[in-house]
Amino acid sequence: MQPASAQLLIHCPDQRGLIAAVTDFIARHDGNILDLDQHVDAIQGVFFMRVEWELDRFQLQREAIADAFDQACGQPYSMRWKLHFSDQVPRMALFCSKLSHCVYDVLARCQSGEWNVEVPLIVSNHEDLRPVAESFGIPYHVVEVTPENKPEAEARQIALLREHEVDFVVLARYMQILSADFISRYPERIINIHHSFLPAFAGARPYHQAHQRGVKIIGATSHYVTTELDAGPIIEQDVARVTHKDSVEDLVRKGRDLEKIVLARAIWHHLGRKVLCYDNRTVVFG
Amino acid sequence: MQPASAQLLIHCPDQRGLIAAVTDFIARHDGNILDLDQHVDAIQGVFFMRVEWELDRFQLQREAIADAFDQACGQPYSMRWKLHFSDQVPRMALFCSKLSHCVYDVLARCQSGEWNVEVPLIVSNHEDLRPVAESFGIPYHVVEVTPENKPEAEARQIALLREHEVDFVVLARYMQILSADFISRYPERIINIHHSFLPAFAGARPYHQAHQRGVKIIGATSHYVTTELDAGPIIEQDVARVTHKDSVEDLVRKGRDLEKIVLARAIWHHLGRKVLCYDNRTVVFG
Amino acid sequence: MQPASAQLLIHCPDQRGLIAAVTDFIARHDGNILDLDQHVDAIQGVFFMRVEWELDRFQLQREAIADAFDQACGQPYSMRWKLHFSDQVPRMALFCSKLSHCVYDVLARCQSGEWNVEVPLIVSNHEDLRPVAESFGIPYHVVEVTPENKPEAEARQIALLREHEVDFVVLARYMQILSADFISRYPERIINIHHSFLPAFAGARPYHQAHQRGVKIIGATSHYVTTELDAGPIIEQDVARVTHKDSVEDLVRKGRDLEKIVLARAIWHHLGRKVLCYDNRTVVFG
Amino acid sequence: MQPASAQLLIHCPDQRGLIAAVTDFIARHDGNILDLDQHVDAIQGVFFMRVEWELDRFQLQREAIADAFDQACGQPYSMRWKLHFSDQVPRMALFCSKLSHCVYDVLARCQSGEWNVEVPLIVSNHEDLRPVAESFGIPYHVVEVTPENKPEAEARQIALLREHEVDFVVLARYMQILSADFISRYPERIINIHHSFLPAFAGARPYHQAHQRGVKIIGATSHYVTTELDAGPIIEQDVARVTHKDSVEDLVRKGRDLEKIVLARAIWHHLGRKVLCYDNRTVVFG
Repeated sequence: MQPASAQLLIHCPDQRGLIAAVTDFIARHDGNILDLDQHVDAIQGVFFMRVEWELDRFQLQREAIADAFDQACGQPYSMRWKLHFSDQVPRMALFCSKLSHCVYDVLARCQSGEWNVEVPLIVSNHEDLRPVAESFGIPYHVVEVTPENKPEAEARQIALLREHEVDFVVLARYMQILSADFISRYPERIINIHHSFLPAFAGARPYHQAHQRGVKIIGATSHYVTTELDAGPIIEQDVARVTHKDSVEDLVRKGRDLEKIVLARAIWHHLGRKVLCYDNRTVVFG
Repeated sequence: MQPASAQLLIHCPDQRGLIAAVTDFIARHDGNILDLDQHVDAIQGVFFMRVEWELDRFQLQREAIADAFDQACGQPYSMRWKLHFSDQVPRMALFCSKLSHCVYDVLARCQSGEWNVEVPLIVSNHEDLRPVAESFGIPYHVVEVTPENKPEAEARQIALLREHEVDFVVLARYMQILSADFISRYPERIINIHHSFLPAFAGARPYHQAHQRGVKIIGATSHYVTTELDAGPIIEQDVARVTHKDSVEDLVRKGRDLEKIVLARAIWHHLGRKVLCYDNRTVVFG
Repeated sequence: MQPASAQLLIHCPDQRGLIAAVTDFIARHDGNILDLDQHVDAIQGVFFMRVEWELDRFQLQREAIADAFDQACGQPYSMRWKLHFSDQVPRMALFCSKLSHCVYDVLARCQSGEWNVEVPLIVSNHEDLRPVAESFGIPYHVVEVTPENKPEAEARQIALLREHEVDFVVLARYMQILSADFISRYPERIINIHHSFLPAFAGARPYHQAHQRGVKIIGATSHYVTTELDAGPIIEQDVARVTHKDSVEDLVRKGRDLEKIVLARAIWHHLGRKVLCYDNRTVVFG
Repeated sequence: MQPASAQLLIHCPDQRGLIAAVTDFIARHDGNILDLDQHVDAIQGVFFMRVEWELDRFQLQREAIADAFDQACGQPYSMRWKLHFSDQVPRMALFCSKLSHCVYDVLARCQSGEWNVEVPLIVSNHEDLRPVAESFGIPYHVVEVTPENKPEAEARQIALLREHEVDFVVLARYMQILSADFISRYPERIINIHHSFLPAFAGARPYHQAHQRGVKIIGATSHYVTTELDAGPIIEQDVARVTHKDSVEDLVRKGRDLEKIVLARAIWHHLGRKVLCYDNRTVVFG
């Protein structure tokens, strides 16, 4: 077990002295920096930074860090920032439909200890994956969604998320479109996996579209969900080579492996508090 | 130097006995098959095949092969087919504008003997790359193209292609759109390189589009030119990873290497008579 | 469900008329070829072929095919060949130790119907993964292996394989070295996953070796087991990019995804009877 | 043209306050940081950093920066550091033998302005590539190397490098092994391209070795030359997929593209002063 650390994500208008101010704040209280990464968007004039430092021997109590940082750096430099602690275990809700591959993959990573995350519940609009959930010992809630009952269904889903104090939601090939209201409650906290190399083949049946177009490479894209379909900030993408020999079914099969890997990497970045959204794009610190 | 071989590309309605008929034709005349690859599009019911055999000791004269094959196989099975001989050196015209990277790369491959191809001329709408052409000893023709003179400019280009008995045309980042008339004269014989992972970011300024969308991977696509812009049959694609740190200029720089490689591979497949077009897609035999 | 087909894998000294002879045999009995792939090793003068055809409407009974083929082609051309039928479901034994990632991945593929395979048992030298096996409903046999009891342990394992009529064995990060005697009983039928890009970093602790050497790319290799450690015919490899930021633990984490994917692809090729071994290398038909 | 910037590469024992000290030094003199990247090797307890800031409006003269930095940071923290300025154009010598692909590729990048580098001379042990050098207008020096004349040949090469004030040397498939004496004069300043995925297939004829072993992926590796053959710090690697169909000649052909790309990326990192060597590995800042 790693000792606890503080993780700070910052963005603000670019200006001189930003890194010096933040690192001086940490050094003044005897913090040991474990990792620092920064980025300047020179076109937009925006500064981005992630810094992580050991809490052990740090001279400020956890509770006091936020206020002290805001006074020392946040307000003087008009920063928008978030503070996390590495030993706060995030709580993830998994939404799925009938396809099992991403669900197995995510749960196997949780169970094997690869990820430090709690999964208090799985939500689905179908019964199909209940045995999978049960084999991992995770409560499985079926909330049927129809065009008619969508508001009530989402209200029920949101109640479940609140009840289980969920921090973020993963749509593991969940085939329903969430309403703007639902999305607005979890901004930059709903991660989707889309089975194409976005922006190519957005929408339905991307593997059919890809086969029809005769592409030589297929892809998968994980992104934060926004109200515009398949258009949110991209967290991770990957691709696989295909040939004329591959039928639509072959694309589906090869695509499953891409979807698993790409979704897993996106969740990994999110769990490490490595992702910052800006201007509908992501900064993913290394 | 490899001994000469015959290369046959076939497609026809799928039916029993096709491979047996073709290979029997070759075996009956003592041909030794060097390579055979076939593919069936089960959905469309179409059979595709490429077979290559040694001419040495083959009992038919070159001139007699086409007729004999058509009688033995082509007509009975309603085949569409093309016959090539490996020692016929194709003649390629290179079209370019101001960017040099693909031109250098293509010419270096020709000059070093990597490819068995003649380049009788380079055509450009700008003077810029004349020194490059001259350093490789290749005639460089500037044909200025404006909205007003386009028909005459193309007539001049076509006259040049005819005069030099050009078999196929490579657009090495040539920034002009060819007319439907021009394209119809070289069906499946004009190879373009587009600097995106098509169908994403078709049209102008794909790297700007990619940067704006925040993709994590960029691509390049080589395709045969058809009358619909950037929508012809894809021959080859490849991709490279990018991050938030990459500016548009970085995408352009990384993309150049993709463009060179992808265009070169597409030309390589074309030179080997390995590409068959069908239904706006390609079969690229391995 | 696809209708049943026959799958024939052949290798023999290269000579004229081979493809014609085989395809004529199939055509004569009204077989419809679904896929044919061939390869000639020009240096060694060896011909390789895989052909698959529909059994429906084929004029020979299954039981009669082998003899008829041997008479028509096998003996005249000195072929070594294997005949399979696509509806014979292979039986796979999974060997594991303590690491769960490959086991989860393989079992999830079996359970979801991605693969057409039976897994009658899992064998391990540790108790750790019993719950995983049980959650998939597969019998789990612990056979402890020590330097002292190795012959008896292997005898017990072989008895289990026989009892369950196992066709092939998958070593899913099984940390024991099999004896030459064990291996000789399952030639080209034991698939291992090694966590490096072989032949680099054979043997123990490849991720430590890779980190020490400072490579920028790590890999995984799936191969048939032979008596020389990590030196059997390679079926599949893949790689992932790493940087100086990646600790050994990061390599282990990134490598797990490689191991899963590479092992799964190797098993997929094996299940499709697409792999031919020759001269300690593989021909993997596309 | 970008305005001039200062580039500082640092490594030292890890300790608290390092980043604060360096960034405070820059901020105190009104420097605007363009890019900062750092890395801690937690196992070895070593801190690495690269920082780049604008010289425009920086309150120290160029000549004064080194001393001031050494006093403020270098000595107090026992740092080893190098200071560069972005407008100092490095001078590169290209060594080659008979193969032209890397030479064309490197020179085309220099000529097109992709790289900001001077190439005052090309050195070869053969006459073959003189026309290539001349077409780019670069002096070409043939220094024949035999087992007998090696010391004198190297003395002549070193004299050429000195006369032309060369900063670093690129071995573009130069087929001779440099002596320890030569290497010691250009530590971490001789870049080689090896045509395999090191450490696999070090030494001679790596493509033959790769074909013999039956690998499914080939690679290329660019590294700084040290006295141990093919064992220096790796700067960059990349790979390409091959199949059983690829002969040794195909590996050579596919490998050429890898060699070009990998060598170019390594030179790009070196030109940007992004590479730090430590413990026979590299830190390549992003």
